Amino acid sequence: MSGGASLQLFAVAGLPMVQPGDDLAGLLAGALARQGLALQEHDVIVVAQKIVSKAEGRTVDLATVTPSARASALAAEIGKDARLVEVILSESERVVRTRPNLLIVEHRLGFVMANAGVDQSNVAPQDGVHRALLLPRNPDASAESLRARLAQASGARIGVIINDSFGRAWRRGTCGIAIGAAGLPALVDLRGRPDLFGRILEVSIIGFADEIAAAASLLMGQADEARPVVLVRGLDWTLPPTNAHELVRPEAEDLFR
Amino acid sequence: MSGGASLQLFAVAGLPMVQPGDDLAGLLAGALARQGLALQEHDVIVVAQKIVSKAEGRTVDLATVTPSARASALAAEIGKDARLVEVILSESERVVRTRPNLLIVEHRLGFVMANAGVDQSNVAPQDGVHRALLLPRNPDASAESLRARLAQASGARIGVIINDSFGRAWRRGTCGIAIGAAGLPALVDLRGRPDLFGRILEVSIIGFADEIAAAASLLMGQADEARPVVLVRGLDWTLPPTNAHELVRPEAEDLFR
Repeated sequence: MSGGASLQLFAVAGLPMVQPGDDLAGLLAGALARQGLALQEHDVIVVAQKIVSKAEGRTVDLATVTPSARASALAAEIGKDARLVEVILSESERVVRTRPNLLIVEHRLGFVMANAGVDQSNVAPQDGVHRALLLPRNPDASAESLRARLAQASGARIGVIINDSFGRAWRRGTCGIAIGAAGLPALVDLRGRPDLFGRILEVSIIGFADEIAAAASLLMGQADEARPVVLVRGLDWTLPPTNAHELVRPEAEDLFR
Repeated sequence: MSGGASLQLFAVAGLPMVQPGDDLAGLLAGALARQGLALQEHDVIVVAQKIVSKAEGRTVDLATVTPSARASALAAEIGKDARLVEVILSESERVVRTRPNLLIVEHRLGFVMANAGVDQSNVAPQDGVHRALLLPRNPDASAESLRARLAQASGARIGVIINDSFGRAWRRGTCGIAIGAAGLPALVDLRGRPDLFGRILEVSIIGFADEIAAAASLLMGQADEARPVVLVRGLDWTLPPTNAHELVRPEAEDLFR
């Protein structure tokens, strides 16, 4: 998992407010350079989903949305804006659970999550219109694109994770998870390795990218003190890189959807 | 969430193999001192469940267990050792899901988890007998006991988390979570705070202790390189301390058990 005996996490400061069409890799490289953070082997850059989505222009003006009959009926049932429900459904494979003011869906990328990740917080109003922000179209591709650009500039083998705060079954409170990843193994499979006493570990597949995403969330904050980029230093890995899609449990092995 | 712009995590080295009856707080204080780590305000010590359970003598020799008829029937159904299933059921409120070689229960403390946390890895064989290790009887009380002892020695207000690796609904791979906590808020509730654009955040309760637990897991490792104690430095909090029981979603608000 980790080669050293310590980890350091640095919030990357000085990023401008991200706008649609921005060159996010260029903004990140500039912010890292201004902070004197030269990327090193096995550094991981964790980027909040919101700024990736903003750079990719994944906003929807709800005033332009015409809800379907299905969205209107569901919105009335759970007490949400029908246009917002329309957007959520358009991002979803199917509805998993509903309750008043709660809509848990399977996102088209397989994530089981509230509101398909469609978010109205921290989105700049334009002409007085509060827009909704969708998840990146392909967060693994976005992570790979950022990784390639940042690795090219530094020469180091690095990882990039795009994280988001997810609610969870059985537990209260959100936790950062990886919705996109590149350059590092999303899962670390220890099965078949001996434990401290030579007994073979039976079940030990670690959600490596999710644990990194959660760690970075501790520094990111959520509101007025938002810090959307975190550098994690001190990790190590030997397995080949995969991506965050590997963290999505296929429906056939999932007992809870 | 975090006052500073960086976090440091240190694996605490040099802890001896923990034995039943050991004074774990004393062992931790000694290991910290030998490493020159003087505890500071808002430091968090994360301790792996296994060494807490070991110190508390939470081992069961399966040879001494007589399975009930219920345990035997369930064991035959899913292909596990009936004595192990008996121990698991004795730690559980109820069975949530079963599949061949998989037993997900609601632990008596409310955790929805595989095998009620009963673990046969990293437990020293005694007289050739591989023992099973149960979760601590009351992990929040264990965390509070460690916190009180370590805080007394240092004078600093610190947090203590007892973590374990849990499987998750919908996602592959385990992630560290907090089964016990003291001295820090397990949840950080940002509801009602304005976002970057003055819009009120609707749903933002962060699983603070779980994110810390996941971060520490990155350094702990699972097998031959196990490092069961991690110091997390650089966090900040203003809410009053709670404990990890706060992270357990009450059954009445849970849609997935």
